[in-house]
Amino acid sequence: MPRRTNTRERLIETAADLFCRQGYAHTGVNEIMQRAKTTSGSFYHFFPTKEDLVLAVVDHIGESLESEVFGGAVATVADPVDRVFAVLESSRRHLEANDFALGSPLGTLAAELSQSHPQVREKLAALFAAWTDRMQLVLEDTGDRLPPGIDRRALAEFILSALEGAVLQTRARRSLVPFDATVTGLRRHLDLLAGARQPTVAPETRPRPAPAARRGSADWRAW
Amino acid sequence: MPRRTNTRERLIETAADLFCRQGYAHTGVNEIMQRAKTTSGSFYHFFPTKEDLVLAVVDHIGESLESEVFGGAVATVADPVDRVFAVLESSRRHLEANDFALGSPLGTLAAELSQSHPQVREKLAALFAAWTDRMQLVLEDTGDRLPPGIDRRALAEFILSALEGAVLQTRARRSLVPFDATVTGLRRHLDLLAGARQPTVAPETRPRPAPAARRGSADWRAW
Repeated sequence: MPRRTNTRERLIETAADLFCRQGYAHTGVNEIMQRAKTTSGSFYHFFPTKEDLVLAVVDHIGESLESEVFGGAVATVADPVDRVFAVLESSRRHLEANDFALGSPLGTLAAELSQSHPQVREKLAALFAAWTDRMQLVLEDTGDRLPPGIDRRALAEFILSALEGAVLQTRARRSLVPFDATVTGLRRHLDLLAGARQPTVAPETRPRPAPAARRGSADWRAW
Repeated sequence: MPRRTNTRERLIETAADLFCRQGYAHTGVNEIMQRAKTTSGSFYHFFPTKEDLVLAVVDHIGESLESEVFGGAVATVADPVDRVFAVLESSRRHLEANDFALGSPLGTLAAELSQSHPQVREKLAALFAAWTDRMQLVLEDTGDRLPPGIDRRALAEFILSALEGAVLQTRARRSLVPFDATVTGLRRHLDLLAGARQPTVAPETRPRPAPAARRGSADWRAW
C-alpha cells in the first residue's frame, strides 16, 4: 500500500504501545509525536484525527495477532490441543516480559472505547470475531479428540473470554497466579472433554475406560 | 461515617456510572459535577483530586458487589453450584438492561488504570482478591460435588477470568452470544468436574457410572 511509510508505521506502533500501557484518552497526541520522533505536520498528514490513528492501531493489532500469534508461536506447534495453549503462553510471555505494563491490546481498547467510540467498537468487534474464527479452526483440527456434539465456535469464545479476563486480572494484581489458574482450568476443561468423547452406553454393555485413557496432558487431579 | 453525605454518595454513583460507560480519562470533573448537580466547592471538599474520587468509586464497587451480587442475587439461591451461575446471571442482566453501555466496573477500570495509577491498581487488586475469596466460599459450599483434589481458589480465579473476558467481548460485540457461550462453557466445566469426582478404580472392579450420574444440570452434550 502506498501510504505505508516508515513514519506512519512508527506512529502506529508507538500509539499501540502507549494505548495498551496507559489507555487511549490518557495518551496525548503530543506524547505520541515525541516518542515517534515526528512532527505534527507528518502526524496530521497520516492521521487527521486521533480516532483515525486508533482505527489504524486496531488494524495493526489484527495483523500482529495473525503474524506473531497464529502465524508465529502457534504455527510451530504440531498438536492442535497444544496450539490452543501456545496462544495462551504467548500472552503470558508478553505479560512477564514487560512486567505487566502492557495488557491485551484488544481487551484494553475494548474496555475503554466500546461505548464512547462506535467506529472503534465496530472494528474491535470484527477483530474479536476474527480471533474466534482462528481459534475455532485450531479446535476443528483436534478432530475426534473432542466430543462431536461440542460447538467449536462457542468453545473458542469461552477460551477467548477466559484469556482476556486472565490478562485483566493478572495486570491488576501484578501476579501470574490468576493467569496460571486460568490456563490450568482450560487445560483441565479440554482434558475432561477429551475424556468424555466416548458415546454414552449402558454400563453393562461397555466397561469404564481404563484410567490412562481418561487422563490428559495436565495432571489436574493432583493440582 | 460522618463524611457520608448525600452529595458525596451522589458524586460517587455518578462517577461510577460515567467511568464504566466511557472510561476514567474521558470523563471530566465538570461532567460529573453537572450530572450530580453539585458545585465545584462541594466536589473539591469531598475529593481534592479526581484520583481521590476514583479511589472512592472502587470502594463503592466493592460494596455493591457485596450487597447487590453476593448479598443479593446469590444469597437467594440455595444450591451452591447454582449460586456460581447467579453471579454470572447478574452480570448478564446488567449488560442487557443497559444495552451494553456499562461494562464490568472492576474490569473497565482495571483495563484503563492498572499501569498509570498505582494506587487505584492496588485497590482494584484487593477487590479482585476479595471477589475471588467470595467465589471460593461458594465453591467450598459445593462440598463433595467437586473432586477433592480441585483447588477451589484457582477454580474461582478461572471463573472470574471467564466472566470478566465475557463482559469485555459482549460489550465490544454488542451481542450476548460470547457471554452465553462462556456461561455454557463454565456450566459444562462444573458438570464435568462433578462427573469426575469418583475415585479412579480399575475397570474390572467397578462398572462405569450410569449416564444419569454423569449428567449435570445443563445438557451440554446436545449443545
